[in-house]
Amino acid sequence: MTIRVFHEHALADLDRVRLSSDESHYAVRVRRVRVGAEIVVLDGLGGMRRGVVERADERACTVVLGAPVPCPVVDPLELWLGLPDPSAALASITAACELAATRIVLVRCRHSPAAVPSSERIARVVRAAQRQCGRPTAPEIAGPVDLASLLAATPPPLGAFAWEQLSQTVTPWADALGADTARRLLVGPEGGLADDEAAACREAGMHAIALGPWTLRTETAVAAGLARLQSTARALPRS
Amino acid sequence: MTIRVFHEHALADLDRVRLSSDESHYAVRVRRVRVGAEIVVLDGLGGMRRGVVERADERACTVVLGAPVPCPVVDPLELWLGLPDPSAALASITAACELAATRIVLVRCRHSPAAVPSSERIARVVRAAQRQCGRPTAPEIAGPVDLASLLAATPPPLGAFAWEQLSQTVTPWADALGADTARRLLVGPEGGLADDEAAACREAGMHAIALGPWTLRTETAVAAGLARLQSTARALPRS
Repeated sequence: MTIRVFHEHALADLDRVRLSSDESHYAVRVRRVRVGAEIVVLDGLGGMRRGVVERADERACTVVLGAPVPCPVVDPLELWLGLPDPSAALASITAACELAATRIVLVRCRHSPAAVPSSERIARVVRAAQRQCGRPTAPEIAGPVDLASLLAATPPPLGAFAWEQLSQTVTPWADALGADTARRLLVGPEGGLADDEAAACREAGMHAIALGPWTLRTETAVAAGLARLQSTARALPRS
Repeated sequence: MTIRVFHEHALADLDRVRLSSDESHYAVRVRRVRVGAEIVVLDGLGGMRRGVVERADERACTVVLGAPVPCPVVDPLELWLGLPDPSAALASITAACELAATRIVLVRCRHSPAAVPSSERIARVVRAAQRQCGRPTAPEIAGPVDLASLLAATPPPLGAFAWEQLSQTVTPWADALGADTARRLLVGPEGGLADDEAAACREAGMHAIALGPWTLRTETAVAAGLARLQSTARALPRS
């Protein structure tokens, strides 16, 4: 499997890089790369290059850079993450990174616990997801913000929200999601959205979607819902 | 959030149940239910009843049973899980339970490691997923079996397989999945399907689907792929 490391500066004009001690440790000690190993280097700014390990030093690994890795153009895809407990929030952010969310807004909902993961923890989790999935740029992370304020501040079309009670009352998956639903998904925290929160979402023009007949963990709802929106929904305007 | 416990016998004709010591411990010590608490009891055979805790004894909790919980009718949905490392296999089985897979076949692929989780571990993980998501029946678990044997033994229509290389070469999500694709999904292990495995799948009539532009962990591919099949694919014949 591909091994990916980060370099803290733009890669575009470089021939070789010397990795930071953290990244060298990761490459040499954790992933056990040796001289001559093929590796991919990301700069976190959208640059991604193939490379070959020249010196496998666990404090100062050097990599000779080769061809850029072509990066697909990705349409904007936004997740509004109704804050669940911190570990579920981090698992949800990981899934959203893999599934190409370009912006993640942390949303305080009625059933959200008080604890929110720190921005440092979120940044570490995002970077780990980028290493794993080969995504060259991180999603923008925004919030936490209250759901009511967010609904009021967002121009239409708003997108879809996962609504567990819909799953339990209609034929599974016979839902309102269509080609005109914008690529923005709200998933509630554990315990779901409160009835009045769901009503406010509908009133603001969001489509309720069912993601199956049973109660999903937040991270499963994020993966399932983003996959649904990817395949059918319409593009958000590029900002 | 709803607390669910298992009882080892069919619930249909019972007025009250005395839970096993394991389930009593779970309810009283882990979930801290008290006398009068509302609870849901599953019998693992498809029966699910509301109940009220009558005696909150951590070794012999008793529950007075009330109305059955109505259960949605679910179309067959099959996951062929190309065996990843055991922890990813268990995470994938959890996601598949939540997303309504009715049958999970463990498939040995070229890149599968030798270790396979034991059937006891799988049963525990399935039960935990049922508690969490409120699903009254467990999916059938089959295999491990070799991919070639499975392809040869399965009558068409076979369904879809997640093909990472498709994600990287075509416009994301412009894939072959349509309303005529059967509700069966093959997800490869970490490292993906080998080229000749993917070729064999195509030759057998499976549709390659792209689940996004980047490399997904197995459990994310399972959740995303099942969500895609749920919404668009056609029913498998009921067995």
